[in-house]
Amino acid sequence: MSADPTWFHETFEPTGSAIGFRVTGKLHEEQSAFQRIEIWDTTDWGKLMVIDGCIMLTGRDNFLYHEMMAHPALFTHSNPKRVVVIGGGDCGTLREVLRHREVESAVQVEIDERVTRLAEQYFPELCEANGDPRATLLFADGIAYMRDAAHDSLDVVIVDSTDPVGPAEGLFNEAFYQSCLRALRPGGILVQQSESPLGHLALIKSMRQHMRNAGFANVRTLPFPQPCYPTGWWSCTMARKGADLSGFRERGAQNKPFHTRYYSADIHKAAMVLPEFVREALGE
Amino acid sequence: MSADPTWFHETFEPTGSAIGFRVTGKLHEEQSAFQRIEIWDTTDWGKLMVIDGCIMLTGRDNFLYHEMMAHPALFTHSNPKRVVVIGGGDCGTLREVLRHREVESAVQVEIDERVTRLAEQYFPELCEANGDPRATLLFADGIAYMRDAAHDSLDVVIVDSTDPVGPAEGLFNEAFYQSCLRALRPGGILVQQSESPLGHLALIKSMRQHMRNAGFANVRTLPFPQPCYPTGWWSCTMARKGADLSGFRERGAQNKPFHTRYYSADIHKAAMVLPEFVREALGE
Repeated sequence: MSADPTWFHETFEPTGSAIGFRVTGKLHEEQSAFQRIEIWDTTDWGKLMVIDGCIMLTGRDNFLYHEMMAHPALFTHSNPKRVVVIGGGDCGTLREVLRHREVESAVQVEIDERVTRLAEQYFPELCEANGDPRATLLFADGIAYMRDAAHDSLDVVIVDSTDPVGPAEGLFNEAFYQSCLRALRPGGILVQQSESPLGHLALIKSMRQHMRNAGFANVRTLPFPQPCYPTGWWSCTMARKGADLSGFRERGAQNKPFHTRYYSADIHKAAMVLPEFVREALGE
Repeated sequence: MSADPTWFHETFEPTGSAIGFRVTGKLHEEQSAFQRIEIWDTTDWGKLMVIDGCIMLTGRDNFLYHEMMAHPALFTHSNPKRVVVIGGGDCGTLREVLRHREVESAVQVEIDERVTRLAEQYFPELCEANGDPRATLLFADGIAYMRDAAHDSLDVVIVDSTDPVGPAEGLFNEAFYQSCLRALRPGGILVQQSESPLGHLALIKSMRQHMRNAGFANVRTLPFPQPCYPTGWWSCTMARKGADLSGFRERGAQNKPFHTRYYSADIHKAAMVLPEFVREALGE
Protein backbone atom coordinates (compact mmCIF):
# COMPACT_ATOMS: atom_id res chain seq x y z
CA MET A 1 0.00 0.00 0.00
CA SER A 2 1.41 3.34 -1.04
CA ALA A 3 1.12 6.40 1.17
CA ASP A 4 1.07 8.77 -1.80
CA PRO A 5 -2.20 9.01 -3.68
CA THR A 6 -2.06 7.54 -7.17
CA TRP A 7 -4.74 6.72 -9.73
CA PHE A 8 -6.67 3.59 -10.56
CA HIS A 9 -7.95 3.66 -14.14
CA GLU A 10 -10.38 1.27 -15.74
CA THR A 11 -9.78 1.45 -19.46
CA PHE A 12 -12.93 0.08 -21.02
CA GLU A 13 -11.99 -1.20 -24.46
CA PRO A 14 -15.45 -1.57 -26.06
CA THR A 15 -16.32 2.10 -25.56
CA GLY A 16 -12.77 3.45 -25.90
CA SER A 17 -13.26 5.37 -22.67
CA ALA A 18 -11.87 5.20 -19.16
CA ILE A 19 -12.92 6.05 -15.62
CA GLY A 20 -10.44 6.58 -12.80
CA PHE A 21 -10.30 7.35 -9.12
CA ARG A 22 -7.50 8.68 -6.95
CA VAL A 23 -6.55 5.84 -4.63
CA THR A 24 -4.43 5.72 -1.50
CA GLY A 25 -3.79 1.99 -1.58
CA LYS A 26 -4.99 -1.52 -2.35
CA LEU A 27 -6.68 -3.04 0.70
CA HIS A 28 -7.22 -6.51 -0.69
CA GLU A 29 -6.72 -8.63 -3.79
CA GLU A 30 -7.66 -12.22 -4.48
CA GLN A 31 -8.46 -14.63 -7.25
CA SER A 32 -11.77 -16.27 -6.32
CA ALA A 33 -13.09 -19.37 -8.07
CA PHE A 34 -14.75 -17.06 -10.58
CA GLN A 35 -12.88 -13.79 -10.89
CA ARG A 36 -10.14 -11.47 -9.66
CA ILE A 37 -11.44 -9.16 -6.91
CA GLU A 38 -9.64 -6.03 -5.69
CA ILE A 39 -10.61 -3.57 -2.98
CA TRP A 40 -8.99 -0.13 -3.03
CA ASP A 41 -9.27 2.87 -0.79
CA THR A 42 -9.81 6.22 -2.52
CA THR A 43 -9.32 9.82 -1.48
CA ASP A 44 -12.85 11.00 -2.36
CA TRP A 45 -15.03 8.01 -3.25
CA GLY A 46 -14.80 5.73 -0.22
CA LYS A 47 -13.88 2.12 -0.90
CA LEU A 48 -13.68 0.85 -4.46
CA MET A 49 -14.44 -2.73 -5.59
CA VAL A 50 -12.93 -3.90 -8.87
CA ILE A 51 -13.67 -7.26 -10.52
CA ASP A 52 -11.50 -8.48 -13.39
CA GLY A 53 -10.27 -4.91 -13.85
CA CYS A 54 -13.80 -3.46 -14.06
CA ILE A 55 -15.02 -1.00 -11.44
CA MET A 56 -18.05 -2.50 -9.70
CA LEU A 57 -18.85 0.14 -7.13
CA THR A 58 -17.58 2.94 -4.94
CA GLY A 59 -18.83 3.83 -1.50
CA ARG A 60 -19.86 7.26 -2.73
CA ASP A 61 -21.92 6.71 -5.86
CA ASN A 62 -23.39 3.20 -5.57
CA PHE A 63 -26.66 4.61 -4.21
CA LEU A 64 -27.58 5.75 -7.71
CA TYR A 65 -27.36 2.26 -9.15
CA HIS A 66 -28.82 0.36 -6.21
CA GLU A 67 -31.82 2.65 -5.83
CA MET A 68 -32.59 2.54 -9.55
CA MET A 69 -32.26 -1.24 -9.71
CA ALA A 70 -34.81 -1.67 -6.92
CA HIS A 71 -37.33 1.14 -6.52
CA PRO A 72 -38.76 1.72 -10.01
CA ALA A 73 -39.63 -1.98 -10.33
CA LEU A 74 -40.92 -2.33 -6.77
CA PHE A 75 -43.09 0.79 -7.01
CA THR A 76 -44.42 -0.34 -10.38
CA HIS A 77 -45.55 -3.71 -9.08
CA SER A 78 -48.84 -3.41 -7.19
CA ASN A 79 -47.82 -5.72 -4.35
CA PRO A 80 -44.28 -7.11 -4.58
CA LYS A 81 -44.08 -9.95 -2.08
CA ARG A 82 -41.51 -12.31 -3.49
CA VAL A 83 -38.32 -10.89 -4.95
CA VAL A 84 -35.19 -12.55 -6.33
CA VAL A 85 -31.92 -10.74 -6.97
CA ILE A 86 -29.64 -12.53 -9.44
CA GLY A 87 -26.04 -11.47 -8.84
CA GLY A 88 -25.94 -8.40 -6.60
CA GLY A 89 -23.27 -9.91 -4.36
CA ASP A 90 -22.41 -6.59 -2.75
CA CYS A 91 -25.92 -6.73 -1.18
CA GLY A 92 -26.74 -3.09 -1.96
CA THR A 93 -29.71 -3.97 -4.16
CA LEU A 94 -30.96 -6.45 -1.55
CA ARG A 95 -30.85 -3.69 1.06
CA GLU A 96 -32.99 -1.40 -1.12
CA VAL A 97 -35.48 -4.22 -1.82
CA LEU A 98 -35.91 -4.90 1.88
CA ARG A 99 -36.82 -1.27 2.53
CA HIS A 100 -40.21 -2.17 1.02
CA ARG A 101 -42.54 -3.46 3.72
CA GLU A 102 -44.63 -5.38 1.19
CA VAL A 103 -41.68 -7.67 0.48
CA GLU A 104 -42.09 -10.96 2.33
CA SER A 105 -39.13 -12.78 0.86
CA ALA A 106 -35.99 -11.60 -0.93
CA VAL A 107 -33.51 -14.18 -2.21
CA GLN A 108 -30.10 -13.08 -3.46
CA VAL A 109 -28.48 -15.60 -5.80
CA GLU A 110 -24.82 -14.62 -6.20
CA ILE A 111 -22.46 -17.05 -7.87
CA ASP A 112 -19.36 -15.85 -6.01
CA GLU A 113 -19.57 -15.96 -2.22
CA ARG A 114 -16.28 -14.04 -1.97
CA VAL A 115 -17.95 -10.90 -3.37
CA THR A 116 -20.43 -10.92 -0.51
CA ARG A 117 -17.83 -11.74 2.15
CA LEU A 118 -15.67 -8.84 0.95
CA ALA A 119 -18.70 -6.54 0.84
CA GLU A 120 -19.47 -7.46 4.45
CA GLN A 121 -15.93 -6.48 5.37
CA TYR A 122 -15.39 -3.38 3.24
CA PHE A 123 -18.93 -2.11 2.51
CA PRO A 124 -20.79 -3.02 5.74
CA GLU A 125 -23.38 -0.30 5.07
CA LEU A 126 -24.57 -2.24 1.99
CA CYS A 127 -24.93 -5.42 4.02
CA GLU A 128 -26.89 -3.94 6.91
CA ALA A 129 -30.09 -5.74 5.86
CA ASN A 130 -28.47 -9.15 5.37
CA GLY A 131 -29.74 -10.29 8.77
CA ASP A 132 -33.34 -9.36 7.91
CA PRO A 133 -35.49 -12.48 8.50
CA ARG A 134 -37.02 -11.97 5.03
CA ALA A 135 -33.58 -12.23 3.36
CA THR A 136 -31.93 -15.40 2.02
CA LEU A 137 -28.40 -15.32 0.66
CA LEU A 138 -27.62 -18.15 -1.73
CA PHE A 139 -24.30 -18.67 -3.44
CA ALA A 140 -25.29 -20.42 -6.61
CA ASP A 141 -25.65 -20.06 -10.37
CA GLY A 142 -28.46 -17.59 -11.12
CA ILE A 143 -29.16 -19.11 -14.54
CA ALA A 144 -29.82 -22.54 -13.03
CA TYR A 145 -31.77 -20.97 -10.16
CA MET A 146 -34.18 -19.25 -12.51
CA ARG A 147 -34.44 -22.30 -14.77
CA ASP A 148 -35.51 -24.40 -11.80
CA ALA A 149 -37.68 -21.79 -10.05
CA ALA A 150 -41.32 -22.71 -9.46
CA HIS A 151 -43.66 -21.39 -12.12
CA ASP A 152 -45.72 -18.32 -11.23
CA SER A 153 -43.90 -17.94 -7.93
CA LEU A 154 -42.17 -14.52 -8.06
CA ASP A 155 -43.20 -10.88 -8.30
CA VAL A 156 -39.91 -9.18 -9.15
CA VAL A 157 -36.64 -10.56 -10.52
CA ILE A 158 -33.71 -8.14 -10.42
CA VAL A 159 -30.66 -9.03 -12.51
CA ASP A 160 -27.79 -7.13 -10.94
CA SER A 161 -24.86 -8.61 -12.82
CA THR A 162 -21.51 -7.75 -14.29
CA ASP A 163 -21.16 -6.97 -17.99
CA PRO A 164 -22.45 -9.53 -20.52
CA VAL A 165 -19.10 -11.29 -20.86
CA GLY A 166 -17.71 -14.17 -18.79
CA PRO A 167 -19.94 -15.53 -15.99
CA ALA A 168 -22.75 -13.04 -16.68
CA GLU A 169 -23.07 -13.69 -20.42
CA GLY A 170 -25.88 -16.21 -19.97
CA LEU A 171 -28.00 -13.60 -18.17
CA PHE A 172 -28.58 -11.62 -21.36
CA ASN A 173 -30.20 -14.16 -23.68
CA GLU A 174 -33.68 -15.34 -24.59
CA ALA A 175 -33.42 -18.67 -22.74
CA PHE A 176 -32.73 -16.87 -19.45
CA TYR A 177 -35.55 -14.42 -20.05
CA GLN A 178 -37.92 -17.34 -20.73
CA SER A 179 -36.95 -18.79 -17.35
CA CYS A 180 -37.72 -15.45 -15.72
CA LEU A 181 -41.05 -15.15 -17.49
CA ARG A 182 -42.12 -18.61 -16.35
CA ALA A 183 -41.08 -17.95 -12.76
CA LEU A 184 -42.91 -14.63 -12.57
CA ARG A 185 -46.54 -14.36 -11.60
CA PRO A 186 -48.83 -12.39 -13.93
CA GLY A 187 -47.93 -8.71 -13.61
CA GLY A 188 -44.45 -9.69 -12.45
CA ILE A 189 -41.47 -7.58 -13.42
CA LEU A 190 -37.97 -8.44 -14.58
CA VAL A 191 -35.46 -5.61 -14.22
CA GLN A 192 -31.89 -5.85 -15.41
CA GLN A 193 -28.90 -3.53 -15.51
CA SER A 194 -28.57 -2.61 -19.19
CA GLU A 195 -25.27 -0.77 -19.54
CA SER A 196 -24.73 2.71 -21.01
CA PRO A 197 -27.30 4.52 -23.19
CA LEU A 198 -24.44 6.16 -25.09
CA GLY A 199 -21.91 3.33 -25.06
CA HIS A 200 -24.04 0.21 -25.45
CA LEU A 201 -27.12 1.14 -27.42
CA ALA A 202 -26.87 -1.95 -29.64
CA LEU A 203 -26.76 -4.17 -26.55
CA ILE A 204 -29.80 -2.43 -25.03
CA LYS A 205 -31.68 -2.91 -28.28
CA SER A 206 -30.76 -6.57 -28.42
CA MET A 207 -31.69 -7.18 -24.74
CA ARG A 208 -35.08 -5.61 -25.31
CA GLN A 209 -35.66 -7.73 -28.39
CA HIS A 210 -34.69 -10.90 -26.52
CA MET A 211 -37.08 -9.95 -23.70
CA ARG A 212 -39.91 -9.43 -26.16
CA ASN A 213 -39.07 -12.65 -27.99
CA ALA A 214 -39.19 -14.47 -24.66
CA GLY A 215 -42.78 -13.29 -24.27
CA PHE A 216 -42.58 -10.16 -22.12
CA ALA A 217 -45.45 -7.89 -23.09
CA ASN A 218 -43.84 -4.57 -22.22
CA VAL A 219 -40.29 -3.33 -22.00
CA ARG A 220 -38.99 0.05 -20.77
CA THR A 221 -35.43 1.34 -20.36
CA LEU A 222 -34.66 3.92 -17.66
CA PRO A 223 -31.37 5.86 -17.84
CA PHE A 224 -29.64 7.21 -14.75
CA PRO A 225 -26.25 8.71 -13.87
CA GLN A 226 -23.54 6.37 -12.59
CA PRO A 227 -20.11 8.04 -12.42
CA CYS A 228 -18.09 4.87 -11.77
CA TYR A 229 -19.30 3.01 -14.88
CA PRO A 230 -18.11 3.56 -18.46
CA THR A 231 -19.42 6.90 -19.85
CA GLY A 232 -20.80 7.78 -16.38
CA TRP A 233 -24.29 7.08 -17.63
CA TRP A 234 -26.12 3.81 -17.12
CA SER A 235 -29.57 2.25 -17.39
CA CYS A 236 -31.86 -0.49 -16.22
CA THR A 237 -34.42 -2.20 -18.41
CA MET A 238 -37.75 -3.42 -17.03
CA ALA A 239 -39.88 -6.08 -18.71
CA ARG A 240 -43.32 -7.04 -17.49
CA LYS A 241 -45.39 -10.19 -17.77
CA GLY A 242 -48.83 -9.45 -19.14
CA ALA A 243 -49.17 -5.89 -17.95
CA ASP A 244 -47.86 -2.50 -18.92
CA LEU A 245 -45.08 -0.41 -17.42
CA SER A 246 -46.30 3.13 -17.93
CA GLY A 247 -47.83 3.66 -14.50
CA PHE A 248 -46.53 3.08 -10.99
CA ARG A 249 -47.69 3.49 -7.39
CA GLU A 250 -46.96 7.21 -7.42
CA ARG A 251 -48.53 7.96 -4.04
CA GLY A 252 -46.68 5.02 -2.55
CA ALA A 253 -43.42 6.41 -3.85
CA GLN A 254 -44.28 9.91 -2.63
CA ASN A 255 -45.06 8.66 0.85
CA LYS A 256 -42.47 5.91 1.12
CA PRO A 257 -41.51 5.21 4.73
CA PHE A 258 -37.77 5.17 3.99
CA HIS A 259 -35.17 7.65 2.82
CA THR A 260 -33.53 7.61 -0.60
CA ARG A 261 -30.76 9.76 -2.01
CA TYR A 262 -31.59 9.62 -5.74
CA TYR A 263 -35.00 8.02 -6.27
CA SER A 264 -38.29 9.84 -5.80
CA ALA A 265 -41.69 9.67 -7.47
CA ASP A 266 -40.64 12.58 -9.69
CA ILE A 267 -37.31 10.93 -10.53
CA HIS A 268 -39.24 7.78 -11.45
CA LYS A 269 -41.29 9.73 -13.97
CA ALA A 270 -38.19 11.56 -15.24
CA ALA A 271 -36.30 8.29 -15.70
CA MET A 272 -39.11 6.98 -17.93
CA VAL A 273 -38.25 9.70 -20.48
CA LEU A 274 -35.76 8.62 -23.11
CA PRO A 275 -33.34 11.05 -24.75
CA GLU A 276 -34.16 11.60 -28.40
CA PHE A 277 -31.31 9.54 -29.84
CA VAL A 278 -32.17 6.61 -27.55
CA ARG A 279 -35.87 6.84 -28.33
CA GLU A 280 -35.13 6.88 -32.06
CA ALA A 281 -32.65 3.99 -31.88
CA LEU A 282 -35.08 1.87 -29.89
CA GLY A 283 -37.97 2.71 -32.19
CA GLU A 284 -40.17 4.13 -29.43
CA MET B 1 1.56 11.06 -33.50
CA SER B 2 1.61 7.42 -32.53
CA ALA B 3 0.05 4.72 -34.71
CA ASP B 4 -0.82 2.55 -31.72
CA PRO B 5 -3.83 3.62 -29.70
CA THR B 6 -3.01 4.89 -26.24
CA TRP B 7 -5.04 6.67 -23.57
CA PHE B 8 -5.54 10.32 -22.71
CA HIS B 9 -6.60 10.72 -19.08
CA GLU B 10 -7.81 13.87 -17.40
CA THR B 11 -7.17 13.45 -13.70
CA PHE B 12 -9.48 15.93 -12.03
CA GLU B 13 -7.96 16.72 -8.64
CA PRO B 14 -10.91 18.41 -6.89
CA THR B 15 -13.19 15.39 -7.31
CA GLY B 16 -10.46 12.73 -7.12
CA SER B 17 -11.79 11.19 -10.32
CA ALA B 18 -10.60 10.83 -13.87
CA ILE B 19 -12.03 10.49 -17.37
CA GLY B 20 -10.08 9.05 -20.28
CA PHE B 21 -10.41 8.31 -23.95
CA ARG B 22 -8.44 6.01 -26.22
CA VAL B 23 -6.55 8.25 -28.61
CA THR B 24 -4.69 7.56 -31.81
CA GLY B 25 -2.61 10.72 -31.78
CA LYS B 26 -2.30 14.40 -31.00
CA LEU B 27 -3.36 16.49 -33.99
CA HIS B 28 -2.40 19.89 -32.60
CA GLU B 29 -0.99 21.60 -29.54
CA GLU B 30 -0.40 25.27 -28.86
CA GLN B 31 -0.06 27.78 -26.08
CA SER B 32 -2.47 30.60 -26.89
CA ALA B 33 -2.38 33.96 -25.12
CA PHE B 34 -4.73 32.47 -22.51
CA GLN B 35 -4.31 28.71 -22.25
CA ARG B 36 -2.77 25.51 -23.59
CA ILE B 37 -4.99 23.94 -26.25
CA GLU B 38 -4.63 20.37 -27.52
CA ILE B 39 -6.59 18.51 -30.17
CA TRP B 40 -6.48 14.70 -30.14
CA ASP B 41 -8.02 12.08 -32.36
CA THR B 42 -9.78 9.21 -30.57
CA THR B 43 -10.79 5.71 -31.61
CA ASP B 44 -14.46 6.03 -30.59
CA TRP B 45 -15.25 9.62 -29.63
CA GLY B 46 -14.26 11.66 -32.68
CA LYS B 47 -11.94 14.59 -32.08
CA LEU B 48 -11.13 15.66 -28.52
CA MET B 49 -10.35 19.23 -27.41
CA VAL B 50 -8.36 19.69 -24.21
CA ILE B 51 -7.64 23.06 -22.55
CA ASP B 52 -5.05 23.30 -19.78
CA GLY B 53 -5.32 19.52 -19.33
CA CYS B 54 -9.13 19.58 -18.97
CA ILE B 55 -11.32 17.82 -21.52
CA MET B 56 -13.57 20.43 -23.17
CA LEU B 57 -15.47 18.34 -25.67
CA THR B 58 -15.51 15.28 -27.87
CA GLY B 59 -17.13 14.99 -31.26
CA ARG B 60 -19.40 12.24 -29.97
CA ASP B 61 -20.95 13.54 -26.77
CA ASN B 62 -20.91 17.34 -27.02
CA PHE B 63 -24.53 17.35 -28.24
CA LEU B 64 -25.69 16.65 -24.68
CA TYR B 65 -24.04 19.76 -23.29
CA HIS B 66 -24.73 22.10 -26.19
CA GLU B 67 -28.41 21.20 -26.42
CA MET B 68 -28.93 21.57 -22.68
CA MET B 69 -27.12 24.91 -22.56
CA ALA B 70 -29.39 26.34 -25.25
CA HIS B 71 -32.83 24.77 -25.53
CA PRO B 72 -34.24 24.77 -21.97
CA ALA B 73 -33.55 28.51 -21.65
CA LEU B 74 -34.73 29.37 -25.16
CA PHE B 75 -37.95 27.38 -24.82
CA THR B 76 -38.60 28.91 -21.40
CA HIS B 77 -38.34 32.47 -22.68
CA SER B 78 -41.54 33.52 -24.43
CA ASN B 79 -39.80 35.26 -27.33
CA PRO B 80 -35.99 35.12 -27.25
CA LYS B 81 -34.79 37.68 -29.78
CA ARG B 82 -31.43 38.82 -28.49
CA VAL B 83 -29.03 36.22 -27.16
CA VAL B 84 -25.44 36.49 -25.90
CA VAL B 85 -23.12 33.52 -25.40
CA ILE B 86 -20.23 34.22 -23.01
CA GLY B 87 -17.37 31.85 -23.78
CA GLY B 88 -18.58 29.00 -25.97
CA GLY B 89 -15.62 29.34 -28.34
CA ASP B 90 -16.23 25.96 -29.96
CA CYS B 91 -19.44 27.51 -31.37
CA GLY B 92 -21.62 24.48 -30.53
CA THR B 93 -23.90 26.45 -28.23
CA LEU B 94 -24.17 29.25 -30.80
CA ARG B 95 -25.26 26.69 -33.40
CA GLU B 96 -28.04 25.43 -31.12
CA VAL B 97 -29.18 28.99 -30.35
CA LEU B 98 -29.45 29.82 -34.04
CA ARG B 99 -31.77 26.86 -34.63
CA HIS B 100 -34.45 29.03 -32.97
CA ARG B 101 -36.19 31.16 -35.60
CA GLU B 102 -37.24 33.73 -32.99
CA VAL B 103 -33.60 34.65 -32.41
CA GLU B 104 -32.74 37.86 -34.26
CA SER B 105 -29.23 38.34 -32.92
CA ALA B 106 -26.76 35.98 -31.26
CA VAL B 107 -23.41 37.34 -30.10
CA GLN B 108 -20.66 34.97 -28.99
CA VAL B 109 -18.08 36.63 -26.73
CA GLU B 110 -15.11 34.27 -26.48
CA ILE B 111 -11.90 35.54 -24.92
CA ASP B 112 -9.61 33.24 -26.89
CA GLU B 113 -9.91 33.45 -30.66
CA ARG B 114 -7.69 30.39 -31.03
CA VAL B 115 -10.40 28.15 -29.54
CA THR B 116 -12.77 29.19 -32.29
CA ARG B 117 -10.18 28.92 -35.07
CA LEU B 118 -9.29 25.40 -33.95
CA ALA B 119 -12.98 24.48 -33.68
CA GLU B 120 -13.48 25.68 -37.26
CA GLN B 121 -10.64 23.38 -38.33
CA TYR B 122 -11.31 20.29 -36.19
CA PHE B 123 -15.02 20.52 -35.32
CA PRO B 124 -16.49 22.12 -38.46
CA GLU B 125 -19.93 20.65 -37.67
CA LEU B 126 -20.12 22.87 -34.56
CA CYS B 127 -19.27 25.96 -36.61
CA GLU B 128 -21.77 25.42 -39.41
CA ALA B 129 -23.95 28.33 -38.22
CA ASN B 130 -21.07 30.81 -37.84
CA GLY B 131 -21.93 32.38 -41.19
CA ASP B 132 -25.57 32.96 -40.20
CA PRO B 133 -26.32 36.68 -40.71
CA ARG B 134 -27.78 36.80 -37.18
CA ALA B 135 -24.46 35.66 -35.65
CA THR B 136 -21.64 37.88 -34.41
CA LEU B 137 -18.37 36.39 -33.18
CA LEU B 138 -16.45 38.67 -30.84
CA PHE B 139 -13.13 37.81 -29.28
CA ALA B 140 -13.20 39.78 -26.07
CA ASP B 141 -13.55 39.56 -22.30
CA GLY B 142 -17.07 38.43 -21.44
CA ILE B 143 -16.98 40.05 -18.01
CA ALA B 144 -16.29 43.48 -19.51
CA TYR B 145 -18.80 42.85 -22.29
CA MET B 146 -21.60 42.19 -19.83
CA ARG B 147 -20.54 45.08 -17.58
CA ASP B 148 -20.79 47.46 -20.53
CA ALA B 149 -23.90 45.94 -22.16
CA ALA B 150 -26.88 48.26 -22.62
CA HIS B 151 -29.46 47.93 -19.84
CA ASP B 152 -32.60 45.92 -20.64
CA SER B 153 -31.22 44.88 -24.00
CA LEU B 154 -30.98 41.07 -23.91
CA ASP B 155 -33.36 38.13 -23.61
CA VAL B 156 -31.00 35.26 -22.87
CA VAL B 157 -27.39 35.21 -21.65
CA ILE B 158 -25.66 31.81 -21.85
CA VAL B 159 -22.44 31.42 -19.88
CA ASP B 160 -20.62 28.54 -21.57
CA SER B 161 -17.28 28.73 -19.83
CA THR B 162 -14.48 26.58 -18.49
CA ASP B 163 -14.33 25.70 -14.77
CA PRO B 164 -14.39 28.54 -12.23
CA VAL B 165 -10.61 28.84 -12.03
CA GLY B 166 -8.29 30.95 -14.17
CA PRO B 167 -9.88 33.08 -16.89
CA ALA B 168 -13.43 31.92 -16.07
CA GLU B 169 -13.31 32.63 -12.33
CA GLY B 170 -14.91 36.05 -12.69
CA LEU B 171 -17.96 34.52 -14.37
CA PHE B 172 -19.15 32.89 -11.16
CA ASN B 173 -19.54 35.85 -8.80
CA GLU B 174 -22.21 38.31 -7.77
CA ALA B 175 -20.73 41.27 -9.64
CA PHE B 176 -20.94 39.37 -12.93
CA TYR B 177 -24.49 38.24 -12.21
CA GLN B 178 -25.47 41.85 -11.46
CA SER B 179 -24.14 42.84 -14.88
CA CYS B 180 -26.23 40.07 -16.46
CA LEU B 181 -29.34 41.11 -14.55
CA ARG B 182 -28.97 44.74 -15.67
CA ALA B 183 -28.44 43.74 -19.29
CA LEU B 184 -31.44 41.40 -19.39
CA ARG B 185 -34.92 42.62 -20.20
CA PRO B 186 -37.71 41.72 -17.77
CA GLY B 187 -38.35 37.98 -18.09
CA GLY B 188 -34.83 37.53 -19.39
CA ILE B 189 -32.89 34.36 -18.54
CA LEU B 190 -29.29 33.75 -17.52
CA VAL B 191 -28.12 30.17 -17.97
CA GLN B 192 -24.71 28.96 -16.91
CA GLN B 193 -22.90 25.62 -16.91
CA SER B 194 -22.81 24.63 -13.26
CA GLU B 195 -20.50 21.62 -13.02
CA SER B 196 -21.32 18.20 -11.54
CA PRO B 197 -24.31 17.55 -9.24
CA LEU B 198 -22.26 14.90 -7.45
CA GLY B 199 -18.83 16.48 -7.60
CA HIS B 200 -19.53 20.19 -7.16
CA LEU B 201 -22.65 20.55 -5.05
CA ALA B 202 -21.11 23.25 -2.88
CA LEU B 203 -20.25 25.27 -5.99
CA ILE B 204 -23.78 24.90 -7.36
CA LYS B 205 -25.18 26.07 -4.05
CA SER B 206 -22.88 29.07 -3.98
CA MET B 207 -23.64 30.03 -7.61
CA ARG B 208 -27.34 29.92 -6.89
CA GLN B 209 -26.91 32.08 -3.81
CA HIS B 210 -24.83 34.62 -5.75
CA MET B 211 -27.51 34.71 -8.47
CA ARG B 212 -30.23 35.35 -5.89
CA ASN B 213 -28.10 37.95 -4.12
CA ALA B 214 -27.62 39.71 -7.46
CA GLY B 215 -31.39 40.05 -7.71
CA PHE B 216 -32.54 37.13 -9.83
CA ALA B 217 -36.04 36.15 -8.70
CA ASN B 218 -35.92 32.48 -9.62
CA VAL B 219 -33.15 29.92 -9.98
CA ARG B 220 -33.35 26.33 -11.23
CA THR B 221 -30.62 23.71 -11.77
CA LEU B 222 -31.04 21.08 -14.49
CA PRO B 223 -28.80 17.97 -14.40
CA PHE B 224 -27.86 16.07 -17.56
CA PRO B 225 -25.38 13.34 -18.55
CA GLN B 226 -22.02 14.42 -19.97
CA PRO B 227 -19.54 11.53 -20.26
CA CYS B 228 -16.47 13.66 -21.02
CA TYR B 229 -16.72 15.82 -17.88
CA PRO B 230 -15.70 14.80 -14.35
CA THR B 231 -18.17 12.26 -12.87
CA GLY B 232 -19.93 12.00 -16.27
CA TRP B 233 -22.81 14.05 -14.90
CA TRP B 234 -23.19 17.78 -15.37
CA SER B 235 -25.72 20.58 -14.97
CA CYS B 236 -26.79 24.01 -16.07
CA THR B 237 -28.37 26.58 -13.79
CA MET B 238 -30.99 29.03 -15.04
CA ALA B 239 -31.81 32.31 -13.31
CA ARG B 240 -34.64 34.57 -14.38
CA LYS B 241 -35.29 38.28 -14.06
CA GLY B 242 -38.68 38.97 -12.53
CA ALA B 243 -40.45 35.83 -13.68
CA ASP B 244 -40.56 32.19 -12.74
CA LEU B 245 -38.90 29.19 -14.35
CA SER B 246 -41.40 26.42 -13.77
CA GLY B 247 -43.16 26.57 -17.12
CA PHE B 248 -41.86 26.60 -20.67
CA ARG B 249 -43.23 26.71 -24.23
CA GLU B 250 -44.02 23.01 -24.20
CA ARG B 251 -45.90 22.98 -27.50
CA GLY B 252 -43.11 24.96 -29.09
CA ALA B 253 -40.62 22.37 -27.90
CA GLN B 254 -42.83 19.49 -29.07
CA ASN B 255 -43.17 21.02 -32.53
CA LYS B 256 -39.72 22.49 -32.92
CA PRO B 257 -38.72 22.78 -36.57
CA PHE B 258 -35.24 21.34 -35.97
CA HIS B 259 -33.79 18.01 -34.89
CA THR B 260 -32.16 17.38 -31.54
CA ARG B 261 -30.41 14.29 -30.24
CA TYR B 262 -30.98 14.70 -26.48
CA TYR B 263 -33.44 17.52 -25.82
CA SER B 264 -37.20 17.16 -26.14
CA ALA B 265 -40.19 18.67 -24.34
CA ASP B 266 -40.29 15.55 -22.13
CA ILE B 267 -36.54 15.72 -21.43
CA HIS B 268 -37.04 19.39 -20.49
CA LYS B 269 -39.58 18.38 -17.85
CA ALA B 270 -37.43 15.46 -16.69
CA ALA B 271 -34.37 17.71 -16.34
CA MET B 272 -36.34 20.00 -14.01
CA VAL B 273 -36.52 17.17 -11.47
CA LEU B 274 -33.70 17.15 -8.95
CA PRO B 275 -32.39 13.93 -7.39
CA GLU B 276 -33.23 13.74 -3.70
CA PHE B 277 -29.72 14.48 -2.40
CA VAL B 278 -29.43 17.52 -4.67
CA ARG B 279 -32.89 18.79 -3.74
CA GLU B 280 -32.09 18.42 -0.05
CA ALA B 281 -28.68 20.07 -0.34
CA LEU B 282 -30.14 23.02 -2.26
CA GLY B 283 -33.02 23.38 0.17
CA GLU B 284 -35.70 22.96 -2.51
